[in-house]
Amino acid sequence: MSVSTSPPAPSEEALLKLLAGLEPDRADATRKAGDQASEFVQQLPGPRLGVGMDCCVIPLRHGGLSLVQTTDFFYPLVEDPYMMGRIACANVLSDLYAMGITECDNMLMLLSVSQKMNDKDRERVMPLMIQGFRDAAEEGGTSVTGGQTVINPWIIVGGVASVVCQPNEFIMPDGAVPGDVLVLTKPLGTQVAVNAHQWLDQPERWNKIKLVVTKEEVKEAYQEAMFSMGTLNRTAAGLMHKFQAHAATDVTGFGLLGHANNLAAQQRNEVAFVIHNLPIIAKMTAISKACGNLFNLIQGTSAETSGGLLVCLPREQAAKFCSEMKSQSSGAGGSGAWIIGIVEKGDRHARIIDKPRIIEVPPRGSKAANQDNSSTSPSPSPNLS
Amino acid sequence: MSVSTSPPAPSEEALLKLLAGLEPDRADATRKAGDQASEFVQQLPGPRLGVGMDCCVIPLRHGGLSLVQTTDFFYPLVEDPYMMGRIACANVLSDLYAMGITECDNMLMLLSVSQKMNDKDRERVMPLMIQGFRDAAEEGGTSVTGGQTVINPWIIVGGVASVVCQPNEFIMPDGAVPGDVLVLTKPLGTQVAVNAHQWLDQPERWNKIKLVVTKEEVKEAYQEAMFSMGTLNRTAAGLMHKFQAHAATDVTGFGLLGHANNLAAQQRNEVAFVIHNLPIIAKMTAISKACGNLFNLIQGTSAETSGGLLVCLPREQAAKFCSEMKSQSSGAGGSGAWIIGIVEKGDRHARIIDKPRIIEVPPRGSKAANQDNSSTSPSPSPNLS
Repeated sequence: MSVSTSPPAPSEEALLKLLAGLEPDRADATRKAGDQASEFVQQLPGPRLGVGMDCCVIPLRHGGLSLVQTTDFFYPLVEDPYMMGRIACANVLSDLYAMGITECDNMLMLLSVSQKMNDKDRERVMPLMIQGFRDAAEEGGTSVTGGQTVINPWIIVGGVASVVCQPNEFIMPDGAVPGDVLVLTKPLGTQVAVNAHQWLDQPERWNKIKLVVTKEEVKEAYQEAMFSMGTLNRTAAGLMHKFQAHAATDVTGFGLLGHANNLAAQQRNEVAFVIHNLPIIAKMTAISKACGNLFNLIQGTSAETSGGLLVCLPREQAAKFCSEMKSQSSGAGGSGAWIIGIVEKGDRHARIIDKPRIIEVPPRGSKAANQDNSSTSPSPSPNLS
Repeated sequence: MSVSTSPPAPSEEALLKLLAGLEPDRADATRKAGDQASEFVQQLPGPRLGVGMDCCVIPLRHGGLSLVQTTDFFYPLVEDPYMMGRIACANVLSDLYAMGITECDNMLMLLSVSQKMNDKDRERVMPLMIQGFRDAAEEGGTSVTGGQTVINPWIIVGGVASVVCQPNEFIMPDGAVPGDVLVLTKPLGTQVAVNAHQWLDQPERWNKIKLVVTKEEVKEAYQEAMFSMGTLNRTAAGLMHKFQAHAATDVTGFGLLGHANNLAAQQRNEVAFVIHNLPIIAKMTAISKACGNLFNLIQGTSAETSGGLLVCLPREQAAKFCSEMKSQSSGAGGSGAWIIGIVEKGDRHARIIDKPRIIEVPPRGSKAANQDNSSTSPSPSPNLS
């Protein structure tokens, strides 16, 4: 994710070559899946054992236990240091939640202080970022016990999440079967919202979108994106067990379609994921269209940060999962859940249908949200019934 | 360590304030010690539970097991990308070895690709760095199963090491008793050697030291430092158990005295560490003196990268520990061991005596080394007998 939401990246091809070096040479001993690394590695042709999982799962020497851990770090993308800390932590934990793991035994924080900050700014900003990270960790039932800090031209914030699990505590993301239903637990469009918000101060960019959106709508969307990115996917992880989820991943740097493809590629059964509905923060679709192909939001490849879980559920469980997500997540910090597609027989790829149904998700607290009751209801499209 | 061996850092005071935020708010639940973070945190006045340990030790929900993990990342300090990868890995694992832990269940790699590199350089340099890291991990009996990579102005390399242990697998670093002997398992002076090597191409700097050292000697010292930093402390970790070590830490960014003070501060008994001997890479003392107070090598505060273990051993075991270190580490990649001081009754501080004995450690493979037999022998000074 860092690569796609951050400063100029090298070609994906270059990163592929680079990150191929991070592939395990002991695939037999470990179930590989190292975050960003695997996210790139798994773009390589050919099947790979376990590649595409959001965590690495290490069988331990001690009775049936596994060490599950993940790491992620990137650069601030919102102006509020406290919220940025929350987002960084939610984003790290999300990789555990995508495996249905609700507990975390320990977190380490990775931080770099910008050499360009004076002591005054540093003392104001960094403690807020750390506090946001720690508060989100506490919300996740864990705590930060260590870390590493360096000086760097850019601020870096991230962490490591580790947990030792019994086999029944995590759900291997490879059990999707034809007939399953795909559910997404956060709306798309965070990158569009963050960029549009920056453009409020850039007339030449703002002029491109001012015909389709008001400044107020952009500010509301930015707030919604910030809260959504700072929301833990922990509730969804718990409900994955209650409703017998078959597989899940979290939606981050490769966008919905990128991660859906990664998830499809590692299924034991010959399945395909077909996406019919796209829940998107209100007005972000219009902005994306007004910007031409800048975001590829409708194409499903717009990067998300700390996005929702994409969950494969038995057809009869999906609606219940969504309504329980809605009830448990009502109130501040909650997210919803939307049925977005189906699992059918296929060649382990994902696709979005032509003319997908766009579900405009109103920012929480907005007039629209208060009138709206469908934003977190399953609202299956005709395609699904 | 990154802070002291890397680009301009903010005042230690500023970092103290910053990193205080990384102290655990659940000291009862965890034995805190987050690397760099704690290394700074523990500079704060007043005793703190477990502060100063090189790893965090998390009691798990599963029968008596603990999760021990550590993270570290910094910037390249040698020109050879492969060796830099090895050093980064050895440096991360060293925090586990300092607790007498010889196994590591999993490593994650933290990497940033410099945005200033073109694709050609990137494809040449980064895979070598990754390979060096992976080879050192394999030497440590573990493997790298994931990681995160971002684009950054500077190259960053580091990692996370995690292991799930039974209580008898690690040695809490708080058991020193008066009469113990202090042993160091790598020579000091790595920072001096790295800097002196850079000065070969900087006439104005070179002129300051050319009277006390030849270019050949600087090149030999640089090679020695590079191999020493790339050497795992795993042998020493194993011997800590065999010879009933009472406590240990690894010597990194705060230098020998800084880490000796940290270790002394957390002892259960009222002890003081008194350092009589300083094993130093040959000629580095002369260079340090020629540079005035630039390094504070003799004062014991010159930063080291991936330094040796400082081990408190029962008096009757120290010589045997050193000779077995010597025999096990003979040949490429090995390090030695030197008795450097004693533990006496005191106020939990460390000090270096006036006029400590300097042990000039000849670079391996150098003429001197081939003639020399004492470099890894205990050679206790009169002070110790």
